Amino acid sequence: MIYSNSLIAIELHESTIPWLKIFTHTPHKEFSECSMEEKKMIWEAIDLIEKEMLSYFKPEKINIASFGNMLPRVHWHIMARFSHDSHFPEPMWGTKQREGSDQIAPIKPFLEELKKKLSVTFG
Amino acid sequence: MIYSNSLIAIELHESTIPWLKIFTHTPHKEFSECSMEEKKMIWEAIDLIEKEMLSYFKPEKINIASFGNMLPRVHWHIMARFSHDSHFPEPMWGTKQREGSDQIAPIKPFLEELKKKLSVTFG
Repeated sequence: MIYSNSLIAIELHESTIPWLKIFTHTPHKEFSECSMEEKKMIWEAIDLIEKEMLSYFKPEKINIASFGNMLPRVHWHIMARFSHDSHFPEPMWGTKQREGSDQIAPIKPFLEELKKKLSVTFG
Repeated sequence: MIYSNSLIAIELHESTIPWLKIFTHTPHKEFSECSMEEKKMIWEAIDLIEKEMLSYFKPEKINIASFGNMLPRVHWHIMARFSHDSHFPEPMWGTKQREGSDQIAPIKPFLEELKKKLSVTFG
């Protein structure tokens, strides 16, 4: 768990790339079933995380997705992608292209800074 | 092309499932680079399309994604997924599970109704 407030929780997804997940505390199957407050909180969190990932990791591209086919509960994935990562240019759910790269900046300082930014922004 | 206004364009993606794509007219690499007006328009369009897909197709789940690894330009995918579709429960970028289903309602009446709803909502 990286961050939690009254509406959402942000978790780290174990991966060879920087990959975070955002959940609503209240379970919803579809995103349109979320309250306006939950939707806005998620969009603002995605925006903040994307900007922080771009600034710190200098990735090739940010990927964002909400599937929930196996676990029918709204959650969002935000991933920093690199030309040398395990699946690029495929999505992380596609065909693996190569071994994961070790040329990605360490995630710990990023998470520390992100926690501070999230607390300042959302309380 | 299904719909276009001053900020976004909505297109049909050729597929065995109902699959729409939203582009901004102004090219941006990352979603956080979009203007607040573009972001809001996209979130509202995703919300409207999701609700219309749920109501018309009665799918198992809605999937939403923004990758852009091959085409580094912001665009969003919205897909209605069914337990019997070609890839379920995998994302459409994952491993194909079976032949595409022909048990999905025809898309034409859906698109006609969606066009009207988009015009009424966004002008």
